[in-house]
Amino acid sequence: MAVPGIGDRLEGVHSVAAALRSGRVTLLTIERGRATSADMIALAAAAERQNVPVEIVDDVTPLAATSAPQGVVARARPLETHTLRSVVERAPRSALIVLDHAEDPRNVGAIARSAVAAGMTGMVVSSRRAAPLGATAFKAAVGAFEELPVVVVPSIADAVRQLRELGVWTVALDGAGEDSLYSLRILDDPVAIVVGAEGSGVSRLVAERSDVIARLPMAHEVESLNVSVAAALAMFEIGRARGTLS
Amino acid sequence: MAVPGIGDRLEGVHSVAAALRSGRVTLLTIERGRATSADMIALAAAAERQNVPVEIVDDVTPLAATSAPQGVVARARPLETHTLRSVVERAPRSALIVLDHAEDPRNVGAIARSAVAAGMTGMVVSSRRAAPLGATAFKAAVGAFEELPVVVVPSIADAVRQLRELGVWTVALDGAGEDSLYSLRILDDPVAIVVGAEGSGVSRLVAERSDVIARLPMAHEVESLNVSVAAALAMFEIGRARGTLS
Repeated sequence: MAVPGIGDRLEGVHSVAAALRSGRVTLLTIERGRATSADMIALAAAAERQNVPVEIVDDVTPLAATSAPQGVVARARPLETHTLRSVVERAPRSALIVLDHAEDPRNVGAIARSAVAAGMTGMVVSSRRAAPLGATAFKAAVGAFEELPVVVVPSIADAVRQLRELGVWTVALDGAGEDSLYSLRILDDPVAIVVGAEGSGVSRLVAERSDVIARLPMAHEVESLNVSVAAALAMFEIGRARGTLS
Repeated sequence: MAVPGIGDRLEGVHSVAAALRSGRVTLLTIERGRATSADMIALAAAAERQNVPVEIVDDVTPLAATSAPQGVVARARPLETHTLRSVVERAPRSALIVLDHAEDPRNVGAIARSAVAAGMTGMVVSSRRAAPLGATAFKAAVGAFEELPVVVVPSIADAVRQLRELGVWTVALDGAGEDSLYSLRILDDPVAIVVGAEGSGVSRLVAERSDVIARLPMAHEVESLNVSVAAALAMFEIGRARGTLS
């Protein structure tokens, strides 16, 4: 399954290189002034090995979503996405990160990077929010989306219910949660961490449908952590609980 | 000591509210269309209690550094900064975060938020880099700079040497480090974590002068983590080692 638009435009050296390694790139566009750098020569060589056309232009900025495309943009076949069932069944012990209302694509990209590093088995995002998986998120992910199974769902609240039906514990992260995430004994089991918007947290319905509402323990209460920081702390805690970090 | 320009322009509800609580604000400017919201009424009331002039304008965007000032900007006295010696001496057991080449002000702000939450006793930044502590960093910090002692130094490499002389362990975070941060037994002692640029890490001289080069353990190697994520994982590890998180 491929959702139109997800990952079909890429920019930045690492994001384009990773998509090339995945064999998804269909057109590579390099800025003339940077075409002789080692990075660009490597990208162009990789494209040519795959018979992907390479285009040289004076300026890639007008083709880019971010202000720093690093001299390279690409078009690609959309990322293959997964269903909740397939993402749960493909991993012996699921560890999913579910984004409820994550709106800043840089945060979404940073969460994808952390998710791969922490050993998560998939990311669940809503199709209703404003294109969180565009070129900006992919650039911030520095190639992580090529390795992280992504599930796009119409409703996060429904996804939480479905995950429970699939035997996955659902843990909503919220500063007001009674249980400390560090004290949970279920991180070793199939588990999904749900993070919400900064400040307001996860939505009411998502919280109601989650098995546990857990907070990240802190030394001093702050208004909220950056959402990509909160997600990373939770995801690495799963890796720690499972003994998979080294 | 106050470094000109640090924290003297603020924007966004939380950042302005925190500076008002610190008594630093000298002029509050609110956008007409938002002036009757509960947030703005609270800000204006706080300003009036302190005899701080309140200005209503049609649009605050031209006065703002970020694209989302949330209808409010402020001018303020610069943040009081500290020396390395004073920041070490004021805390019984220092836990410092040192930024070597952190250039994105959003990351700097996010790190400040995490630092307060994790119980760090100060942040060290370089005066040589392009204004990392401007309005964008303060907005991303959501008020954290009002609570976190900041030290501005001309050279991070020299600061690392001085911290060692002051009896503080210096730990440079680098993916190529031989020791896992989680295995260090020194996090309970006075300690400074040094984080560098994404990808390239801390500079050579800083690494040479640090006591330990440690990596964050991962389940899967990634090119690098977002710098604010890496810093948060390290800072919360200190809190965990000290038993100060709850």
